[in-house]
Amino acid sequence: MTARIVSLLAAACLCSSLAVAEEHPAIEYRESLMTLVGANFGPMVAMLKGEIPWDDARMAAYGKDLKAVVGLDILRGFPPGSDQGETRAKPGIWENLEDFQKKLEAMQTEATKLGDTAAGADRKAIGDQIAATGKTCKSCHDEYKKKDD
Amino acid sequence: MTARIVSLLAAACLCSSLAVAEEHPAIEYRESLMTLVGANFGPMVAMLKGEIPWDDARMAAYGKDLKAVVGLDILRGFPPGSDQGETRAKPGIWENLEDFQKKLEAMQTEATKLGDTAAGADRKAIGDQIAATGKTCKSCHDEYKKKDD
Repeated sequence: MTARIVSLLAAACLCSSLAVAEEHPAIEYRESLMTLVGANFGPMVAMLKGEIPWDDARMAAYGKDLKAVVGLDILRGFPPGSDQGETRAKPGIWENLEDFQKKLEAMQTEATKLGDTAAGADRKAIGDQIAATGKTCKSCHDEYKKKDD
Repeated sequence: MTARIVSLLAAACLCSSLAVAEEHPAIEYRESLMTLVGANFGPMVAMLKGEIPWDDARMAAYGKDLKAVVGLDILRGFPPGSDQGETRAKPGIWENLEDFQKKLEAMQTEATKLGDTAAGADRKAIGDQIAATGKTCKSCHDEYKKKDD
């Protein structure tokens, strides 16, 4: 009997350590998606700041891809239970899912507008829309993303 | 004079070791993109094989996102020099860039068709188009992607 309990406990420990070791697949999904958001939004900001030369065609292309990426099913990356593992997502996401979703949708709305604006070569309008989009990123990250180390 | 040469050599070594240690940013970009391809194409194949229950709405949703992902600028993920670092991309890509690009475009064409077909709930047509898309993945991976360990 004792041996059986020990063996059950050992199995439980193994499972629990596996659960910690094995990342929830949604983490890779959402991180990949956010990498692509940053890969497009990043150089748009850099052009606005003059860190790289402004190029209307590239601005439009980044905007087009940004719009496509934020149009993906982002919530698929945040199922219940995916707060486990190596992640910078704060547990607050799942405690305030409605608020998180509202902030996510605000980002999707502004980034989609940015995609359309970026096609227009109106630098003032693009700058304003980059700022509006950046605000929605920050608002969600401030609340729901752990600081980078 | 000798000291100057030594210092130049040291700097060169440092640069070269940094080049190996620091991954080319395009690697993360292309791997993220391919993760999102797989995250959508994977469950479509699994439904076709009966590994998960067929669901018309989810099939359409995966197809829609797959089409959006393959519409991104994939070649941005394969600039010259991005064969350095932890990557399964074979050097042949850059030696036969025209062929690689042709295979990539074939995938984009078939996966885009799949996105449209998946919206139609015609299971036979969807199955055929999943197969046609899978062939284009395989054709490129066989030639240009190292086998998984």
